[in-house]
Amino acid sequence: MSVPREVDLLIEARWVVPVEPHGVVLEDHAVAVDGGSIVAVLPTAEARAACAPRERVALGEHALIPGLVNAHTHNPMTLLRGLADDLPLMVWLRQHIWPVEGRVLGPEFVRDGVELAIAEMLRGGTTCCNENYFFPDVAAATYRRAGFRATVGLPLIEFPSAWAKSRDEYFERALAVHDDFRGDALIGTAFAPHAPYTVSDQAFERVRMLADQLDVPVHLHLHETAHEVEEAKRETGLRPLQRMQQLGIVNDRLIAVHMTQLTDAEIALCAEEGVSVVHCPESNLKLASGFCPAEKLRRAGVNLALGTDGCASNNDLDMFGEMRTAALLAKGVAGDASAFDAAATLHAATLGGARTLGLADRIGSIAPGKRADLAAVRLDPLETQPLYHVVSQLVYATGRQQVSDVWIDGRRQLADRALTGLDADALRAKARAWRERVAAIGG
Amino acid sequence: MSVPREVDLLIEARWVVPVEPHGVVLEDHAVAVDGGSIVAVLPTAEARAACAPRERVALGEHALIPGLVNAHTHNPMTLLRGLADDLPLMVWLRQHIWPVEGRVLGPEFVRDGVELAIAEMLRGGTTCCNENYFFPDVAAATYRRAGFRATVGLPLIEFPSAWAKSRDEYFERALAVHDDFRGDALIGTAFAPHAPYTVSDQAFERVRMLADQLDVPVHLHLHETAHEVEEAKRETGLRPLQRMQQLGIVNDRLIAVHMTQLTDAEIALCAEEGVSVVHCPESNLKLASGFCPAEKLRRAGVNLALGTDGCASNNDLDMFGEMRTAALLAKGVAGDASAFDAAATLHAATLGGARTLGLADRIGSIAPGKRADLAAVRLDPLETQPLYHVVSQLVYATGRQQVSDVWIDGRRQLADRALTGLDADALRAKARAWRERVAAIGG
Repeated sequence: MSVPREVDLLIEARWVVPVEPHGVVLEDHAVAVDGGSIVAVLPTAEARAACAPRERVALGEHALIPGLVNAHTHNPMTLLRGLADDLPLMVWLRQHIWPVEGRVLGPEFVRDGVELAIAEMLRGGTTCCNENYFFPDVAAATYRRAGFRATVGLPLIEFPSAWAKSRDEYFERALAVHDDFRGDALIGTAFAPHAPYTVSDQAFERVRMLADQLDVPVHLHLHETAHEVEEAKRETGLRPLQRMQQLGIVNDRLIAVHMTQLTDAEIALCAEEGVSVVHCPESNLKLASGFCPAEKLRRAGVNLALGTDGCASNNDLDMFGEMRTAALLAKGVAGDASAFDAAATLHAATLGGARTLGLADRIGSIAPGKRADLAAVRLDPLETQPLYHVVSQLVYATGRQQVSDVWIDGRRQLADRALTGLDADALRAKARAWRERVAAIGG
Repeated sequence: MSVPREVDLLIEARWVVPVEPHGVVLEDHAVAVDGGSIVAVLPTAEARAACAPRERVALGEHALIPGLVNAHTHNPMTLLRGLADDLPLMVWLRQHIWPVEGRVLGPEFVRDGVELAIAEMLRGGTTCCNENYFFPDVAAATYRRAGFRATVGLPLIEFPSAWAKSRDEYFERALAVHDDFRGDALIGTAFAPHAPYTVSDQAFERVRMLADQLDVPVHLHLHETAHEVEEAKRETGLRPLQRMQQLGIVNDRLIAVHMTQLTDAEIALCAEEGVSVVHCPESNLKLASGFCPAEKLRRAGVNLALGTDGCASNNDLDMFGEMRTAALLAKGVAGDASAFDAAATLHAATLGGARTLGLADRIGSIAPGKRADLAAVRLDPLETQPLYHVVSQLVYATGRQQVSDVWIDGRRQLADRALTGLDADALRAKARAWRERVAAIGG
């Protein structure tokens, strides 16, 4: 008789949805975690015999899923949630968001906004995000302190901000942040040139060279609106994706966000070059940006991820809501009720996101050898009864408040809905203080 | 000094959103309720001086809104939630929904499904629904017993069902149900001919005559898909709305559900004739039915309501989610980020729904003289912080689980998230029993 293996944690769940293999639901399975890694996924009876866990968590009415990956967000803007809604994009940016940001942007705003966002993400089963904002040093430090996994974008835009005054300074500060977090267990970096219309060819060339050298992704808003594409054609004679291709940016490092305007040839190009597309359906709807052809991209074999975008254009960081909107909208856009099915949607929100960030070997599915980024979701509330198909229920009927427990890197960050590392009352008080300050500016 | 008026209930809220006047938010106001009616809406300090309530409820972090009106649903189908997703409409109906319904349809299925739906609706701030299913007698009795407000459709379809075997029997049973519930405080009835393609001209003529005589609405699926409109043109030479007009159905009794296919002339006709349109954005997306031109309808002055449709094509009865989807999708469809703003969306989900059901004099807004159908929504969770604009927050960031308390006709149906009249454990057990039965059929 073999001796049970000592492990840190055994999570026994009514259902485990590993995402790999695709569409599979394991009933009455357990996940063993040791040293922050998943070491076994077994039927619960077998796991009990095989493991001697230091901690056991029994989830009798829950589905255990990989932690969700929010592949595009501007989390400090959580402090501007709902500041200015129902406005055309340029009025929203020029008359509301930019003037307010001009007054509040700085390390404190970034720290407090990221902390509030972490709390919201944890309470909604998100364990990793792709951050894109100024003061990435502060954001990265905040994520690290909270034990939250993040790829932090190193911003680049051709106008001065509180973060940097010149193109050279943007690059200098980017490289310094990259250096500071190199090899961190939870924090990665990416270059984050804002968009084709705000970044020059020279800067893109430098991004390409440095991204290759440092082996990091390039996180870019691309083909967000028809207007962007038309203006680019008028000014450069090229569609933005074409220009990016000429500049060597279109490859498997590229995280192309939004992509509402795509020809079939462009979709084929993205598939061939290994580009990842981050679909942000709620932001695209709210800003009337256009419809991303998500199902066409999926069928072409393009790796797809989901993102909420910032809270000022969504207005939440709810990846359950984003999954649902993505699955529903793709059907309407494709004119096909079988488009973007529940399993494909959950894949995009987990493994697709992990692949986008170059983290598919570490997270995105529940498999031995991966880090233990996990979310447990109660399925016994009346809103998810009766229950015929677990994955359908997760995508089409489950609200994020049904997330009960979250682990990142094996560490429990949410325990029966309670944040283990953040003080909700303090976060609420800070949010209210920022509200007073922003409202006084007249945003 | 005047003597305070004795009232049953005083609800003191941080914010009251009365819906009438449009877009208004009242801070620190109280709503006095007596005999099931709203008798005053006053600043809390004034209300305390003016009223001697038998019960006082203080909602220090809440918005008090009119109870939401779900203007199109098939609530017994809640028992089929998620049974068959990601399928083309006809495969879904013919291979899954209809075969299962054929085996389970009957009074018990309707009673249990409606009870589960009532619990879900109450927990999400919905206080009134427009029901459309077989066995309206059982549904109506179930709503009445639970103290839930409903307009119950009297179904009519030109094929036999467990409810009725012939056109004459459908009418006979419809009239009997109408008689049984005439004058009920909570239950109203409507004729519910299924759709133009399943109901004959003769039957529509009889519906028109009887609806006039009995003074009830006509609840009809109309222009749900492009296919429906094309087939009708091929078979009758007319678009369905045109045929309905010729049959005298297009008037202010008509509750036209879905309406994804509309010319500008048809929109103008609906405005002119006082037709109410029920927009079901999530069902339209999930079944790839098409996009309802909600903003065009709104601008034309058509009365708009929102509905979830049945749980088998949504898969929930979440009117907060439906508001959000409606507001977002309308922007995408109109190509205008200012379309269908938050206040217009809340209006559609409350007063627009009430008007659709002919109940605007009784419910849909918080005003003296109306019945006390109210929902309290907590706005202090982290997910709705910071808070700049209450109505935006309700539509774009609030989850239905933030609903704390619900009153219908002045009676408290949800108290700090607990159902006061239904047993959640019993409902869960019944849902599970139905699941076993349906799964055994092989749905």
